[in-house]
Amino acid sequence: MGAIKLDDISTKAPGNLEKDKVKQQNLELAEELNELQNLLYAESKHSVLVIIQGMDASGKDGAIRKVFGNLNPQGVRVESYKAPTARELSHDFLWRIHRDTPAKGMIQVFNRSQYEDVLITRVHKMIDDETAVKRMKAINDFENLLKEHNNTSILKFYLHISKEEQAKRLQERLDDKTKQWKYNEADFTEAKLWKLYMKAYEDCFHTCNKIPWTIVPSDNNWYKEHIIATTLRDTLKSLKMRYPGLKKE
Amino acid sequence: MGAIKLDDISTKAPGNLEKDKVKQQNLELAEELNELQNLLYAESKHSVLVIIQGMDASGKDGAIRKVFGNLNPQGVRVESYKAPTARELSHDFLWRIHRDTPAKGMIQVFNRSQYEDVLITRVHKMIDDETAVKRMKAINDFENLLKEHNNTSILKFYLHISKEEQAKRLQERLDDKTKQWKYNEADFTEAKLWKLYMKAYEDCFHTCNKIPWTIVPSDNNWYKEHIIATTLRDTLKSLKMRYPGLKKE
Repeated sequence: MGAIKLDDISTKAPGNLEKDKVKQQNLELAEELNELQNLLYAESKHSVLVIIQGMDASGKDGAIRKVFGNLNPQGVRVESYKAPTARELSHDFLWRIHRDTPAKGMIQVFNRSQYEDVLITRVHKMIDDETAVKRMKAINDFENLLKEHNNTSILKFYLHISKEEQAKRLQERLDDKTKQWKYNEADFTEAKLWKLYMKAYEDCFHTCNKIPWTIVPSDNNWYKEHIIATTLRDTLKSLKMRYPGLKKE
Repeated sequence: MGAIKLDDISTKAPGNLEKDKVKQQNLELAEELNELQNLLYAESKHSVLVIIQGMDASGKDGAIRKVFGNLNPQGVRVESYKAPTARELSHDFLWRIHRDTPAKGMIQVFNRSQYEDVLITRVHKMIDDETAVKRMKAINDFENLLKEHNNTSILKFYLHISKEEQAKRLQERLDDKTKQWKYNEADFTEAKLWKLYMKAYEDCFHTCNKIPWTIVPSDNNWYKEHIIATTLRDTLKSLKMRYPGLKKE
């Protein structure tokens, strides 16, 4: 597979899709996911880790609300990674991540993830390229551990939006009183580093591809949700799960 | 207030209620809770702890799925307490509970809780009455800590079912292939201890009443969900929350 070039990938839904039809399919997918999750929880043999990455305002929160908001909350957890605390910084960068990985039967969603430690840190030159490469290798080993030793299916999504769409959404946060709490001046500063971020992301897709990434065109929320829900559905179905019978005592 | 006598409280929905109407109201409540939760999360000044207790098959899992399943999973967490691990047992009984209390902005649901340490343990004579009384006092102090020092609203629900309804539901678990994984032979043994459990519960309601309990008639799921959702809605509304404006930098 050639290297992923984000510039070459559309951020929009394919033109031949009808929004209303896809939205209807999303409702059906929600039902299907509900049943599959119940099975995952009942069987408790596998676990699922969903990693959601993307630039500011790429729609990470919304994707989580829409795709995972209809599942049984007892079987889903969401962790949002912010700047590490002093205690977290006094450990290796995967320490706080490992704590939150899914137990068997569970779906764990990461809103941002271990990848921030080779993205924001790299773009801001808090780490050099050599360290970034070492970290990406550690991430590969870590993901393999989860896969091999806890039957964890790892789904990695990059929410791909255009610079223009981002600018529009950040402005909305300023204008809408119910969204102002999400506004952060630093987001505009980060937006200026767009090219550096794209480069750092492309390097992740290339170096951490043993478990592949899904690039999700995310200018249209309905399409973004559709891709994530479909991928999750297909993954859960591939596990060939069954309801356990009565326990033998 | 006189002591609560569970035998005197109906386990059924009031006869004058129409199931279909209440179910429609439950859908509207779900919308309302969604908006209030968004506000709770945005403002991040208060937190909510929902404690759900009840006998086996009283519908704890279902209540969590139905009432909290429509909220944004990023703002809700569910913790189910099972028998403590060796590590947990080497600490005080509130140690594992404290770890899971809600951060500001969050709704935390406990499926079983600290109260198990004065219920199952007491019924099975793993602790004597004196220890139970001491523990209940510690629970009061602990709940006060959360309330005073983290603006935590604590809602305590007891899902009240009849012995007959429980017997019916446990039998269903045996008969329905998609429910057999929930079946546990020990549940039938526990059911025989019904009276002792009722007594232990009544003692909790009496001794740990600084933050009051809601006794939820739970033979009818639609009514159970209605009571929990209404109580949660009223609590959230009473917080008089507002969307924060722009941060001052």
